[in-house]
Amino acid sequence: MKDIQNTTDIRGIAIQRVGIKDAKLPFQIRTKVGGYQPVLADIQFTVALPRHLRGTHMSRFMEILNEWGTKPIAEKEMEAILLQAIDHLDADSALLSLGFKYFISKTAPVSGKASLLDVDCKFIGELTKAGNFSFTLEVRVPYTSLCPCSKEISNYGAHNQRGKMSVSIKFSNDRECIFIEDLVKIMEDQASCPVFPLLKRVDEKYVTEAAYDNPKFVEDILRDLVIALRSLDGQVYFRVECENYESIHNHNAYAAHEESSTG
Amino acid sequence: MKDIQNTTDIRGIAIQRVGIKDAKLPFQIRTKVGGYQPVLADIQFTVALPRHLRGTHMSRFMEILNEWGTKPIAEKEMEAILLQAIDHLDADSALLSLGFKYFISKTAPVSGKASLLDVDCKFIGELTKAGNFSFTLEVRVPYTSLCPCSKEISNYGAHNQRGKMSVSIKFSNDRECIFIEDLVKIMEDQASCPVFPLLKRVDEKYVTEAAYDNPKFVEDILRDLVIALRSLDGQVYFRVECENYESIHNHNAYAAHEESSTG
Amino acid sequence: MKDIQNTTDIRGIAIQRVGIKDAKLPFQIRTKVGGYQPVLADIQFTVALPRHLRGTHMSRFMEILNEWGTKPIAEKEMEAILLQAIDHLDADSALLSLGFKYFISKTAPVSGKASLLDVDCKFIGELTKAGNFSFTLEVRVPYTSLCPCSKEISNYGAHNQRGKMSVSIKFSNDRECIFIEDLVKIMEDQASCPVFPLLKRVDEKYVTEAAYDNPKFVEDILRDLVIALRSLDGQVYFRVECENYESIHNHNAYAAHEESSTG
Amino acid sequence: MKDIQNTTDIRGIAIQRVGIKDAKLPFQIRTKVGGYQPVLADIQFTVALPRHLRGTHMSRFMEILNEWGTKPIAEKEMEAILLQAIDHLDADSALLSLGFKYFISKTAPVSGKASLLDVDCKFIGELTKAGNFSFTLEVRVPYTSLCPCSKEISNYGAHNQRGKMSVSIKFSNDRECIFIEDLVKIMEDQASCPVFPLLKRVDEKYVTEAAYDNPKFVEDILRDLVIALRSLDGQVYFRVECENYESIHNHNAYAAHEESSTG
Repeated sequence: MKDIQNTTDIRGIAIQRVGIKDAKLPFQIRTKVGGYQPVLADIQFTVALPRHLRGTHMSRFMEILNEWGTKPIAEKEMEAILLQAIDHLDADSALLSLGFKYFISKTAPVSGKASLLDVDCKFIGELTKAGNFSFTLEVRVPYTSLCPCSKEISNYGAHNQRGKMSVSIKFSNDRECIFIEDLVKIMEDQASCPVFPLLKRVDEKYVTEAAYDNPKFVEDILRDLVIALRSLDGQVYFRVECENYESIHNHNAYAAHEESSTG
Repeated sequence: MKDIQNTTDIRGIAIQRVGIKDAKLPFQIRTKVGGYQPVLADIQFTVALPRHLRGTHMSRFMEILNEWGTKPIAEKEMEAILLQAIDHLDADSALLSLGFKYFISKTAPVSGKASLLDVDCKFIGELTKAGNFSFTLEVRVPYTSLCPCSKEISNYGAHNQRGKMSVSIKFSNDRECIFIEDLVKIMEDQASCPVFPLLKRVDEKYVTEAAYDNPKFVEDILRDLVIALRSLDGQVYFRVECENYESIHNHNAYAAHEESSTG
Repeated sequence: MKDIQNTTDIRGIAIQRVGIKDAKLPFQIRTKVGGYQPVLADIQFTVALPRHLRGTHMSRFMEILNEWGTKPIAEKEMEAILLQAIDHLDADSALLSLGFKYFISKTAPVSGKASLLDVDCKFIGELTKAGNFSFTLEVRVPYTSLCPCSKEISNYGAHNQRGKMSVSIKFSNDRECIFIEDLVKIMEDQASCPVFPLLKRVDEKYVTEAAYDNPKFVEDILRDLVIALRSLDGQVYFRVECENYESIHNHNAYAAHEESSTG
Repeated sequence: MKDIQNTTDIRGIAIQRVGIKDAKLPFQIRTKVGGYQPVLADIQFTVALPRHLRGTHMSRFMEILNEWGTKPIAEKEMEAILLQAIDHLDADSALLSLGFKYFISKTAPVSGKASLLDVDCKFIGELTKAGNFSFTLEVRVPYTSLCPCSKEISNYGAHNQRGKMSVSIKFSNDRECIFIEDLVKIMEDQASCPVFPLLKRVDEKYVTEAAYDNPKFVEDILRDLVIALRSLDGQVYFRVECENYESIHNHNAYAAHEESSTG
């Protein structure tokens, strides 16, 4: 049976990324406390294609991934998966992105009631044949923001709303990446108040007053987040975004910033 | 060239709805003040297929729609389009759904600044060969809600958030349907406060205090909307939904209700 | 601390559904072979609110759900959860919808390679205080369709595409609902060919020829699905939808049908 | 009334982008033939915020945009809008992104029937206080792809599917950007066959056979697109993506590539 993909291409164009997208598979993600959490991953998995080859072998991406569904995944395992892709597909580099919802245990501030908060995470790994490995962690966390201007100019009350902040972060190669749990904590601390899936009335009083006591513009949250991330030992790059779903508009307030610390 | 669709089907199943979905076309929607507004419509257009026919003729749906892009559309034109479908496709009934964003002119409450608010609308028409025509208007409007419990139990502040309420409404056949502009006004009046695309500081003070002075649960907004809709002369059916994007949670508070008044 | 929700409402409107929406939690779903599959659930959970009460207690929905994350869920457990809602919220009825991706084991038709296919499922349960319980299973399955008209009129080739078919089905109360695995099999059998996450070249030849040998309009797939579902012992209601993402258009071909067999 | 935004910030962080997101407004886009097309725009509009200022003035973004709804927009007008933002918000730079569906007139290949095809476009403009202006056009076009491997190895037929390709392109500052209409034509020419909203049976035969006569992997389409874009006079940067919604899988085949030609 002829292997058309394997024929020679004469157009002379090396393709930077080719592979599969929007594939879904169950995975297990290593947790901070030592176990793992089962997740549903949205997958993008590509390789670089040399100029002389007409096509890659699409089925091999799924073959590689199918082996990894039962082993807890973290930074090191991402590298191992990418190495398989480079080997099995004879590629110069490979990229794997796993997006998933991850549940963080939250404790209501007064009642102490426990609940699980969903945060959106992404593991992005890139590996070259020469062995250069890069790992990016992306985390997107919901929060409460309360508008300082609205509080200042109004006789009572202040508009507030749910927002989402996201961080993409890389660490230098001699450092382990931060745990999702720890990054979420750092991010939540910069909001007017964190959100909780389960709040009793005593908690609702607490978060209402806490947000009112801590008014922040989208710019304030972003700046405080930048300061917090700069202080993380070993980080070499981050990008942050904050978006407030304004309760008084039908559009959002938005801020974004990125930094490379190649010191 | 053989017409496979037109061959006889022996399975004996009359299909209730077959046609096209997720088609996009520009349309013009009649406005209350007399002109029209150009919109981008998301289209679903189907007919009933008799048991003896294997397939409908999919290209005719687009042929019919292409003629209507330049004529302002309202209830009467929906009926005319459906009549064409019944005729050209030899069907017992037809259904057309046009979903579109429609812009409402808003005036900021203190500064008087004008701006355009996008609301999600849908025209749904159904016609039978016997001439029974039914028209449903769906409108989805953003709003501000402020929590009465949070206000009551907190020493200061109150959590508030953007919400969306939607209404589907039908009128008796001897009545014209309500204008989008009028329905939006009725809907916004039931919230803690309407939202505005453009607010200067004097307006922000106003809406902050207005919402604080008018705290409403999702249940309150829904009930007040039910009362307002019941009072509309000639209505025979409505369905309402309210959803608050809670600023203190990562999930929403939701309420729904429907009534047929076949008195 | 005052319980505002618990105050008397004088508007005289009993709300049909109020509760939470777009909540996310991990659950375990009972599988056909006896174990369970961990899933990420998108949750809607509501109760009916009597006319004399101003509001429901939103936090109790999350409290109830939090207890069920570690126990495998099927029809019987849905009823138990709903009973808790009716009890804890003093409601006349309750509704719970759990939407989740569920993985089905697939075997490539020639190479025998195993892979996991994601299908969209929903468990919808409704319970009244009087004990009437209704359970609906919804399953949405991807498939390949190949156009009979295109095959017939063309000298070679035939346009084909991915499609999605969905079934909502209820069984009479003395019957257990069908397993997801069995319903998916019935659904896939009606397509021109099923889809597979992993296909080697021998498999690709097989599915290409299988689809070409089995051309079906969206109407054909729908009718064959209706016939297959009618034959299921104990079913009392079903609704089916088929949608082909036409490879020759930027819109979809669509068919829908529903039946109640209250014989 | 105190202007909190205008107070001094001591954190020392200049924010790269702050403004509004997910705003919706009607706009008019200049067409190739000389008139304009009304569109619904999804807007992101931001400025850089100097380190000494606590916040930007969010209402001014909407004020600026409201003036431009009635004037046909192209590259030059994007620059004028950005200049207003820099002036009114005292910013060092500004960025505006307008995403919209644009309709292209298509003619069926045999019957000659006319119809309107929706393509997703984006205008992205960036301007600095020093006057450096950059304009990026993004266009996303649906197409048909037919798999060369499936054709080669199968006795008859070949799997094919809808795909989407996207191009982001910049031209040197002394050149005008390419028209949407011309870019769409170049893009469609690289597919196995273009898609059409309206095809009669004679056309369906034509496109079925045309795609079968022109089998292309996602890699082939991407490479041919790269070659076509390289030949555009005055281009200095492009990024391309191709994605095939495989009819035999529930995931997509994907390829991406970007080039800067700073010659």
